[in-house]
Amino acid sequence: MTSTVPVPTLISQSVLLDDDAVRILDRRVFPFERTWVTCRDHEDVARAIEDMVTQSSGPLFAAAAGMALAARDADRLATVEQRRELMAGAGRRLVSTRPTNNQIRDVVAELLEVTETALAAGERLAPVVEHSALDAGHRYLARSRALGEHAAPLIPDGATVLTHCWAESYLTETVAAVLRSGKRIDAICTETRPYLQGARLTAESLAEMGVPTRLITDGMAAHLMSRGEVTAFVTAADRVTMDGHVVNKIGTLQIAVSAHTFGVPYVALVQAPDRQAPDAASVELENRDGDEVLHCLGRRTASTRVAGLYPAFDITPPRFVSAVVTDRGRFSPHDMASYHNDPAEVQR
Amino acid sequence: MTSTVPVPTLISQSVLLDDDAVRILDRRVFPFERTWVTCRDHEDVARAIEDMVTQSSGPLFAAAAGMALAARDADRLATVEQRRELMAGAGRRLVSTRPTNNQIRDVVAELLEVTETALAAGERLAPVVEHSALDAGHRYLARSRALGEHAAPLIPDGATVLTHCWAESYLTETVAAVLRSGKRIDAICTETRPYLQGARLTAESLAEMGVPTRLITDGMAAHLMSRGEVTAFVTAADRVTMDGHVVNKIGTLQIAVSAHTFGVPYVALVQAPDRQAPDAASVELENRDGDEVLHCLGRRTASTRVAGLYPAFDITPPRFVSAVVTDRGRFSPHDMASYHNDPAEVQR
Repeated sequence: MTSTVPVPTLISQSVLLDDDAVRILDRRVFPFERTWVTCRDHEDVARAIEDMVTQSSGPLFAAAAGMALAARDADRLATVEQRRELMAGAGRRLVSTRPTNNQIRDVVAELLEVTETALAAGERLAPVVEHSALDAGHRYLARSRALGEHAAPLIPDGATVLTHCWAESYLTETVAAVLRSGKRIDAICTETRPYLQGARLTAESLAEMGVPTRLITDGMAAHLMSRGEVTAFVTAADRVTMDGHVVNKIGTLQIAVSAHTFGVPYVALVQAPDRQAPDAASVELENRDGDEVLHCLGRRTASTRVAGLYPAFDITPPRFVSAVVTDRGRFSPHDMASYHNDPAEVQR
Repeated sequence: MTSTVPVPTLISQSVLLDDDAVRILDRRVFPFERTWVTCRDHEDVARAIEDMVTQSSGPLFAAAAGMALAARDADRLATVEQRRELMAGAGRRLVSTRPTNNQIRDVVAELLEVTETALAAGERLAPVVEHSALDAGHRYLARSRALGEHAAPLIPDGATVLTHCWAESYLTETVAAVLRSGKRIDAICTETRPYLQGARLTAESLAEMGVPTRLITDGMAAHLMSRGEVTAFVTAADRVTMDGHVVNKIGTLQIAVSAHTFGVPYVALVQAPDRQAPDAASVELENRDGDEVLHCLGRRTASTRVAGLYPAFDITPPRFVSAVVTDRGRFSPHDMASYHNDPAEVQR
């Protein structure tokens, strides 16, 4: 990084691949506590992802590191077949943790390919899988940085940027690019119940970057937009389908609809649209345990006579999306196929 | 009540005018605890309203009872002028507690008129003010019941009714009328951060009435509506202006915009449009302490490096409102003036 904009803790310290374990920054208690969950094998990592120790792009790094732990274990097995089976099982286990997250799917697929090559060459798995796991993380961050450079021109000087949930390096790289270009902005985060990604992760990270940041509840965005107090609505996307539907944290659709109604542009950030998802119907939406909606930071917030409902993601149709920004540039949601054409042609 | 539908605790036990004090059911901890805050004079009542011990139509009953306490104190003063001054001061104090709430304003004005008549007749104030305070409460509930009867036809058998915040007797009387007519419904409540009116008050009260009830966070409504899982969106209104703007708990606008987008009717319940509010600009919107957004049930939920923003109400323009239901019938939001015509003409 040549930038002088500070890198937030959640980006730099999120997943640590150590000699004895993978250590995952516990986002369930961040920023109130800065503690790491120690994972000794890929099963520990899978459970940590399921238990929401990490989220957003954290699972990409965690799953990659989990595969590296699996490779260490595989090297201790007698036969190639046993090693292949352990690696494939670890991959399936990690992919199964968060079905809407295609970053886990993609990094696991990549590391299984590397595994096959190493097995065929009779090489030890640990060094090559670890190397590729770290490399995947570096490439992800480099592509996030490119994405941020493409997104920054959409944020004018003096803008108030509203964001929902925690858009991780897509957001921090966008903000870093905005600040590097000499523009000044302030931010408003939704708290993002029930996990409070906005109140805890986004708010702390934007503050670490020096951006004046205010917090609202998840129901306040339309009010502020109706009064002209928001310049742009910016989120990450867990996925963008090839026909321009944006899959993201529950609550995004509601704010995107309001943004559309009140003339505020909605900018979705994603490294690339998902070639394996032609349309909204092809994306599995995760339903999480409704009990999470009945609690806040572990404390019961609701009547004991009510059931919780927790669809974890929603889908925003392209008519509510102003632009999709990727590592290859800015796209209309109606033109996502261009991303997978010759990159040189679509840089704009 | 001739109905066999149970009356929720929040309606029947909300404000108790006793010989020694007013006791206000503490909605800040309901339903986890069922405790009453004891108010010895109108100042205690005013502070309880400011501190959100009660809310929704609770302040109407509390303010009326607070005026009854003031009347008892006034009767101990030597001169008519001192009594008038104490009553006027109590009224001003109570009205100042929640500026967006016109129910406090109206009941205080009514009780000050009664006070003037009693002072002019040389009567003791306590009996007449107490009688009128209780009468105002009874009339309010009778009008809520009429409102509920007018609203019920808008809720079809088998409907899933989404509601936001706690619509008090407007909602419970609507639900009671629906159930009396033999229809069966289920309900979805938003939790309504930061005070959690939906998670605590609405969820508990609907369950007390036997309505199967599910809870969502404030950001989930659009998702459910986009999937056809909501039949109608129903809220109270703190005020409806004469040009059809609905002032209600923050978050209403965002859901109303989504309802409009996805073809779900939005029904606003209010006893009467506010003759003193010709348009949205004439309604003062209360801003509450932003710290409430940074906490949940008293526990910090947000980064310590962020400021909270808490506009307590929002305004939904008439184009997003399908019907306004009052004690005199159902109105188009574009036709609110009809309410104040001859009631016989507008019953429909």
